[in-house]
Amino acid sequence: MPKLRFNMTMSLDGYVAGPNQSLENPLGEGGLALHDWAFATKTFRDTHEVGGDEGETGLDDDRAAAWNTNIGATIMGRNMFGPVRGPWGDSAWAGWWGADPPFHTPVFVLTNHPREPVEMTGGTTFEFVTDGIESALDHAVEAAGDADVSLGGGAGTAQQYLRAGLIDEMEIHVVPLFLGGGSRLFENLSGGPAGYECVGLVSSPAVAHYTYARKT
Amino acid sequence: MPKLRFNMTMSLDGYVAGPNQSLENPLGEGGLALHDWAFATKTFRDTHEVGGDEGETGLDDDRAAAWNTNIGATIMGRNMFGPVRGPWGDSAWAGWWGADPPFHTPVFVLTNHPREPVEMTGGTTFEFVTDGIESALDHAVEAAGDADVSLGGGAGTAQQYLRAGLIDEMEIHVVPLFLGGGSRLFENLSGGPAGYECVGLVSSPAVAHYTYARKT
Repeated sequence: MPKLRFNMTMSLDGYVAGPNQSLENPLGEGGLALHDWAFATKTFRDTHEVGGDEGETGLDDDRAAAWNTNIGATIMGRNMFGPVRGPWGDSAWAGWWGADPPFHTPVFVLTNHPREPVEMTGGTTFEFVTDGIESALDHAVEAAGDADVSLGGGAGTAQQYLRAGLIDEMEIHVVPLFLGGGSRLFENLSGGPAGYECVGLVSSPAVAHYTYARKT
Repeated sequence: MPKLRFNMTMSLDGYVAGPNQSLENPLGEGGLALHDWAFATKTFRDTHEVGGDEGETGLDDDRAAAWNTNIGATIMGRNMFGPVRGPWGDSAWAGWWGADPPFHTPVFVLTNHPREPVEMTGGTTFEFVTDGIESALDHAVEAAGDADVSLGGGAGTAQQYLRAGLIDEMEIHVVPLFLGGGSRLFENLSGGPAGYECVGLVSSPAVAHYTYARKT
């Protein structure tokens, strides 16, 4: 069975985006620095075509690579996809990632407002799902074939899947940064997340990687 | 100058005590498990006189030992000291730690209610400070002589010192546990903590240790 896999970077004070998110500052104030560890890796630089050979290898790159392997479809919330709110109208918004997004798979965007699929260069297609997280997962599993499904953010989307107990594997990358406000990952979970066991904890000087599997 | 040093263990979802703290369950539901990594160390077993030779050495023990070294006085909040609320009256409560507490130094307990000092076996004296965190720090620095001052919990006390910018060095031990509720360490900080830089991040399979120093 394909797995639903989720990985996200969090500040030590629990935020996955900083305060005052905006079009100019989609990760909020200070939020971009969450991902400095990832930006430095060969894997990130390869997948974003910004010069993989100049990227770092080692433990952090290994973790980034593990989460980029065997992904056949992606699910994300509308806030991760873009800043547009309400009906799509004739919006031409097609994500933050330019003409050739780094997914190279179908991407299922959770939204309350229907929209026709948007086909991008390089194998990424944005499809818009209006009937909830389980439907999005069904579509993604079907699209992924034998591969797994990756769950993106934001925090609200992750919380919906955590509450529903639908995430099979997750890794939280905790960086020694304080954002002081913004979007917390672990809240609105009704006493959870429940049912996960830690199966790995490793660190570099930049980040500690906490890996969990759902208890069977 | 003596330093004010603070170390505390936090769950991955940000709690330093679980939900529903009580006399029977002073760390809240599930909260005791926060400290499993520490309980296993030689340092903890030595300082609590429960058989140090059976304790583990290695990275986690090194971190525990570092935080037990060169401490000349301790500050803690009333909730860490005990469950008694309101005036002390003729309460005989003298902490959770028995006749010979593991501090072996003066311990300054923050409270709104005056009480005479309580001298314990082994060099620990509980003194009760009613005029605020800076006064407690002044008393502790004077008592500590050339050694440093250790700040204990709980979360509310730590937040007061963090807001005031009085902590010189801190280490947050993050364990891969989810408590789902309880006392969060990093909240009520008005956008902080500010002014700290990470000077170390190391991990064992049980816990990652994030060390900070105040920027000078």
